Amino acid sequence: MGVVVSLEDSKKRPDASVEPLVALVAADMERVNALILGKAGSDVTMIPEVANHLISSGGKRLRPMLTLASAQMCGYEGDGHVKLAMAVEFMHTATLLHDDVVDESDMRRGRLAARKLWGNQASVLVGDFLLGQAFRTMVEVGSLQALGILSDAAAVIAEGEVMQLAAAKNVATTEDEYLAVIRAKTAALFSAAAEVGPIIAGRGRDEEAAFRSYGTNLGIAFQLIDDALDYGGSSAALGKNVGDDFREGKITLPVVLAYRRGSDEDRAFWKRCLQDGGAVEGDLARAIDLLRGRRAIETTVERARHYGAMACDALAPFKDGPHKRALLEVVEFCVSRVH
Amino acid sequence: MGVVVSLEDSKKRPDASVEPLVALVAADMERVNALILGKAGSDVTMIPEVANHLISSGGKRLRPMLTLASAQMCGYEGDGHVKLAMAVEFMHTATLLHDDVVDESDMRRGRLAARKLWGNQASVLVGDFLLGQAFRTMVEVGSLQALGILSDAAAVIAEGEVMQLAAAKNVATTEDEYLAVIRAKTAALFSAAAEVGPIIAGRGRDEEAAFRSYGTNLGIAFQLIDDALDYGGSSAALGKNVGDDFREGKITLPVVLAYRRGSDEDRAFWKRCLQDGGAVEGDLARAIDLLRGRRAIETTVERARHYGAMACDALAPFKDGPHKRALLEVVEFCVSRVH
Repeated sequence: MGVVVSLEDSKKRPDASVEPLVALVAADMERVNALILGKAGSDVTMIPEVANHLISSGGKRLRPMLTLASAQMCGYEGDGHVKLAMAVEFMHTATLLHDDVVDESDMRRGRLAARKLWGNQASVLVGDFLLGQAFRTMVEVGSLQALGILSDAAAVIAEGEVMQLAAAKNVATTEDEYLAVIRAKTAALFSAAAEVGPIIAGRGRDEEAAFRSYGTNLGIAFQLIDDALDYGGSSAALGKNVGDDFREGKITLPVVLAYRRGSDEDRAFWKRCLQDGGAVEGDLARAIDLLRGRRAIETTVERARHYGAMACDALAPFKDGPHKRALLEVVEFCVSRVH
Repeated sequence: MGVVVSLEDSKKRPDASVEPLVALVAADMERVNALILGKAGSDVTMIPEVANHLISSGGKRLRPMLTLASAQMCGYEGDGHVKLAMAVEFMHTATLLHDDVVDESDMRRGRLAARKLWGNQASVLVGDFLLGQAFRTMVEVGSLQALGILSDAAAVIAEGEVMQLAAAKNVATTEDEYLAVIRAKTAALFSAAAEVGPIIAGRGRDEEAAFRSYGTNLGIAFQLIDDALDYGGSSAALGKNVGDDFREGKITLPVVLAYRRGSDEDRAFWKRCLQDGGAVEGDLARAIDLLRGRRAIETTVERARHYGAMACDALAPFKDGPHKRALLEVVEFCVSRVH
């Protein structure tokens, strides 16, 4: 609690912001938000209660912004991007609801997790409902190609979550194995969210591939920074407790690195805490000391910068313009964010 | 345990069988089964383990048979019906996996529930994976109309499950309220499964509506008999313990009827057992006595016959033939089944 690790060693640009992107998609995002409220509605009152608890709790809506921005940048003029953006946000929300059940989390975005308020049952079922609504809305858009991309993502995300479950207790997970998990569980939705823009705009293979690559690498960078923040932010700013991953025995990149670089004694410590579930008072502070000593947080941020750079290069062929600049700044924001 | 209630008062035809339908769709069902095995596969070994545990445990595959039979009966000649049938079965399997978590069930189809073997987490996530695979496969078929029907069903099923969760502890639930729940949680998938056959065969509104109505009413009848069986079969034959609904405090039609028809003392009993969770040893036997005394099981079976008759009439305009006869016999089988 309250342990703070400075990320100052990384070349963060604290001025990078998500605001230019927010401004560009603001009008469309209002329509997305209205659609979200409508599609989370149901005569079954528990559904809007649970859904709105999470939807209104102030996520950044980064994923639907990617869909809106990529469609706008590709000159799309219909309203399909608004529906697809809503579907993307519902897929994300459904994942969060199910994740909280799987992880037995108590907190989410600084509030009690829905499962603590309404029970695991409601979290599972309202997640299923939102996923159903997401597909229903995608079908309305009528693009089989976009449907293919998003339904692929839905299966891959779940596969990634199971992969993580299976790997969760193995401290000897390699960096590559860990990357495969986050490519699936996080980057797949970023990728799909960005790719469906050029798809509904009918812009062809090269643009689709460019946005897919942008989304994938942004998603990986985003998750790696999330992992670093879980050991590095202050509890209040993070919106959840520092050390959640540690307490849940999750193996993330900082741990993968610290374990590999550590002494036998270090490795015994990580095994006891994460593999055998034997963490006690004071172990989190020691874990953070070890991560710092092995420069594991710094390396995680460096790795994130690598994927962030790939995301930026994916967009290099596009002409300069406000959308391109905003999307590049989002990469920098994600990599530099410390809230 | 082992309490047996005879259903002999109902006009059951014990010779009605699902076998004619099984024979008609046997060749296609082999292709469905092969596809199921393929699509439940994953390098993440926990996924096929969990999925196959449930898939191989001998469900009747009634829902995918409806898709195959309705497509065949409408003269469809492609292979889309095989893919849609697989998707329907995956949607059903995903629901079972999530239901077991929601209901905290120990048994499913006479075997330990997946959640008891692999944990709630795996059940939630493998369910999500199967749902993703279902949508992926539907998209391959390329019919936006079929996608619309099945994604509607996915949202409605989840809505019905939440409705049931909210109503679960209210013994004063009306028969109408209960019907709304099972229309959503059970009949919606039967309906969609039957309707997508004429849709991909391009047979037009009337055939679609006929199969939709057939599926809906068959689904309602099927669920009502399931509810009756939960208080009436023998434990071994049922594949799950008699009285599961009672122990889980589920309000089903037999209870709705017995509560309304009962004395004040009866109602206090149902409240204590189902609403306040205060059931003790011997209460199940008393519950079954009360259900018999109020003819609640018999009425439930009569109600099922009503919906079964509607299902049969929905197919009345079709010319006689082996498919029509087999589908009508399935209705009789579902209503008469006592396993």
